[in-house]
Amino acid sequence: MTERPRARPVSRRGLLTGGALAAGGALAGTAAVTAARSDTPAVRPVQALPAAQVGTAVEPFHGSRQAGVATEAQAHAAFVAFTLRPGTDRAALGRMLRLLSDDAARLTQGRPALADTEPELGLLPARLTVTFGLGPGCYRAAGLDDRRPASVADLPSFRIDRLQPRWSGGDLLLQICADDPLTVAHAQRVLVKDSRPFATVRWVQQGFRRAAGAEPGRTQRNLFGQLDGTANPKPGDPLDSAVWVPDGPDWLRDSSTLVLRRISMNLETWDLLGRTDRELAVGRRLDTGAPLTGTAEHDEPDFAALGPDGLTVIPDFSHLTRAHVTDDRLKILRRPYNYDGVPAADGTADSGLIFASYQADVARQFLPIQRRLAERDLLNEWTTPIGSAIFAIPPGCPEGGWIGQQLLG
Amino acid sequence: MTERPRARPVSRRGLLTGGALAAGGALAGTAAVTAARSDTPAVRPVQALPAAQVGTAVEPFHGSRQAGVATEAQAHAAFVAFTLRPGTDRAALGRMLRLLSDDAARLTQGRPALADTEPELGLLPARLTVTFGLGPGCYRAAGLDDRRPASVADLPSFRIDRLQPRWSGGDLLLQICADDPLTVAHAQRVLVKDSRPFATVRWVQQGFRRAAGAEPGRTQRNLFGQLDGTANPKPGDPLDSAVWVPDGPDWLRDSSTLVLRRISMNLETWDLLGRTDRELAVGRRLDTGAPLTGTAEHDEPDFAALGPDGLTVIPDFSHLTRAHVTDDRLKILRRPYNYDGVPAADGTADSGLIFASYQADVARQFLPIQRRLAERDLLNEWTTPIGSAIFAIPPGCPEGGWIGQQLLG
Repeated sequence: MTERPRARPVSRRGLLTGGALAAGGALAGTAAVTAARSDTPAVRPVQALPAAQVGTAVEPFHGSRQAGVATEAQAHAAFVAFTLRPGTDRAALGRMLRLLSDDAARLTQGRPALADTEPELGLLPARLTVTFGLGPGCYRAAGLDDRRPASVADLPSFRIDRLQPRWSGGDLLLQICADDPLTVAHAQRVLVKDSRPFATVRWVQQGFRRAAGAEPGRTQRNLFGQLDGTANPKPGDPLDSAVWVPDGPDWLRDSSTLVLRRISMNLETWDLLGRTDRELAVGRRLDTGAPLTGTAEHDEPDFAALGPDGLTVIPDFSHLTRAHVTDDRLKILRRPYNYDGVPAADGTADSGLIFASYQADVARQFLPIQRRLAERDLLNEWTTPIGSAIFAIPPGCPEGGWIGQQLLG
Repeated sequence: MTERPRARPVSRRGLLTGGALAAGGALAGTAAVTAARSDTPAVRPVQALPAAQVGTAVEPFHGSRQAGVATEAQAHAAFVAFTLRPGTDRAALGRMLRLLSDDAARLTQGRPALADTEPELGLLPARLTVTFGLGPGCYRAAGLDDRRPASVADLPSFRIDRLQPRWSGGDLLLQICADDPLTVAHAQRVLVKDSRPFATVRWVQQGFRRAAGAEPGRTQRNLFGQLDGTANPKPGDPLDSAVWVPDGPDWLRDSSTLVLRRISMNLETWDLLGRTDRELAVGRRLDTGAPLTGTAEHDEPDFAALGPDGLTVIPDFSHLTRAHVTDDRLKILRRPYNYDGVPAADGTADSGLIFASYQADVARQFLPIQRRLAERDLLNEWTTPIGSAIFAIPPGCPEGGWIGQQLLG
C-alpha cells in the first residue's frame, strides 16, 4: 500500500503512444503539466496542450492539499456519494480510506490499481483527480463528532429548495474528474468495487464541461448559455484564502468544504424569454459575460449606474447583484459541471448544473450568498435546487500516506 | 433555408479563440481537417490535432453520402430515436427533414440554428456530425413502403436477446456525434425542439469513447478493456464497398443501413474471470489486441494453429472466430460507443456498449455474423443485447438540399 510512486510518473501508455508523438515529447509534456510545487497541487496556468497529451497529462495526487479543487476543471466528472454500512467504524473507515487512497494514487498517475481487473483502462490518466469528501455521517461513524468542522452540517432549508433524497446527503464523497470519459468510468468502477465492504452507493451525478482544449482559457458555459464562474477568486493568494483553512489542528489545516447542489434548469421556460430579459435576469451579457455596465467579462460591475429610465442598469435583483462579493476571503470557488439527462417523450429537457462550491468556511462564505439568492434572485424563476450535500475536504497526504489519516490515523 | 454556406466555414468562435492560437493557425487547422473531396465526407487520416483545434474542427455536412458513418468516430454520441406523431405524413415528414437538415447544416459548421435560443452554444462544432436514419415506420408514414430497402425491417429475434422496448425500435433516428459533450447536448436540444410538431422522443442513448486526441490512431477500448473495432474494413475502397449501396434509384445509391444494438456488459462476472480465460473467450490478447496466434493487433489470425495440447490456439467458439470475415464486401463497419450509467446501491455497474454497425446490406453482411455469434460465442456469457433498432441511412444532400429529398421530395 505504501509503495513509493516514481518521482516522475511515466505511464506505460505514455510510452506506447509514441507513434503519434516525438518520443521525448510525451514525457516532457507530462512533466510540464505536473505541478511545479511538490507539496501542493498547484493551479496550472491555462495553456493549450497538444491533443496527444490529453491522455498522458498527469495531476499530482500527493501534497498538503487535495487535488481536484484548485485544479483547472477537467472535462468530465462523476460525483459518487456513499452511505457507510452499519459496521463501518473508525478502524474500518481507516482501512477503506487507505485502500481508496492507494487506488487513487495509482490511477491518477496512469498506473492500474492493485486489484485492477481491466488494467489497460488504467493507463491513460488524462489529468485524473480523485477528491475525497467526508459527510457528517463519517464523523459520527468514527466517533469523532467533536472533530467535525462546524461547516459540515446540513444546510438550512431555503424556500426555493425542492430537494430530493436521491440527490442529497451522503457519508462519503468521491469526486472523480478527468479529461477523458473512459478514464472517469474506469476509476469509478475500481473505487466503487473497493468500497463495497464498507459502504453502499447512495447516488452518482455525472457531469461535463467543454472538452479539453476546446476553448482554452475560457470560463465554462452552462446549458442556459451563460458564462458560469466569472467571479471566482483568482489563482494564487485570493483563491488560497477563500478555499483553504489556514490553521488549526492537522485534520483541519489545508482542508476545505464542498457544497454540492443539483440545480435543475428549466430550458422550456428559459427558451421563451427574450434575450434582453435574460441578460437583465443575469446582470451580464450572454455573449461576452460582461456586466451590463461593462464591455469585458472581468469588468467590475457598476451597481449604481443608472439607465435613461432612471433605473439601475443592472437590476437590483439580478443574479450578479445578489451573488456579488468583493472581499476575496468571502468569495467561493465555483467548479460546476453540466448535466444533461434523457429528455421526456414531449422533448422536455432534463438539464441542469451540478453546482460545486469550495470554501474554507460555509457559514461565512457560502451561506450569506445563498441566503441572498434564495431570498430574491431573478434567476430563481428558471432554476430549482433538487439536491444538496455537504462534505469536508480533508487535507492531502504525503507519499505513502492516505487521505483522512490526520483525522483517523 | 437554402442560404449557401461559406466555402470555407469560419465560425465566430474560431475568430474569438485567437488568444490561445496564432490567428492564422486556427483557420488553417480548420481547413486542414475539412474533408479533401467536396462531394463526399472523407475518412480523415488519423492525426494528432493540437488541442486548441478540438473545438473549431469541422466535418462537412453536405455531400453525396452522409457524414458520421465513415467519419473518424468522435468522442461523444447521442442516439435520439423518435416516434412520428399520427399526423406526420409524407409532406409533414418532408418539412421535418428540411428543418432538421437546415439545423444540422448550420450547427455542424459552427453556426447557430435559425431559431437557436442559446446561440453561444452553437459556435464550437468540435467535428459535430448529425446523421439521419429512417426506420420502417418512416416509410409507412410516408406511404412509400415500396421504396423501403429490404434491409430496413425488424431483425429476426436471437436466442441471446433480452430486448427492452425502452431501447428498441424508432421511426426516425438522429445520431449526434462531436468531440465536445456540450456541443452534443446543445445540438440534441435544438433538434429535439424542432422535432416536436412532428414526433415524440422514443429513447435517447448517450455514449462515449476516448477524448479527442487522448489516444490518436488507436482502436477504441470498451469497458471490458478489449480493443473493439480491429476488424473494421480499412478506409478507402474496402470501407466503401462494405458500407455504401453502390447503385439503384437515387434514394438508394450512396445510402447505408445502421443496426443499433444496446449490449449490456456484465462487469461483475467478467471481473471474476482470469486473464487467460478472458483472452480465450475473445480470441485476442487484452493488451495489444493481437490474435492469440499473433503479436500485433492487425495480424491475421491463424485458426488452424494448434497448441501443445492439440487444441486450436484460438478456440473455435471465441468471439474472434465466430465474428471473422475475410471478404471486405461482407464486413461490417463497427462504430461503437460505451455507455456507463449509475451503478446500483450494491455497486453493480450499469455498463455496456452502444453497438452501431453500418453495412450496405443487412441480410448479406450483418445477419450471418450475428447468427454465428448468437448460436455460439463464448462472450455471450457476459454480454446481453437489451435493445435493437434498424434504420436506413439515406444518401447525403448537396448545399441547399435536405436529407431524405431523394425519397420524399
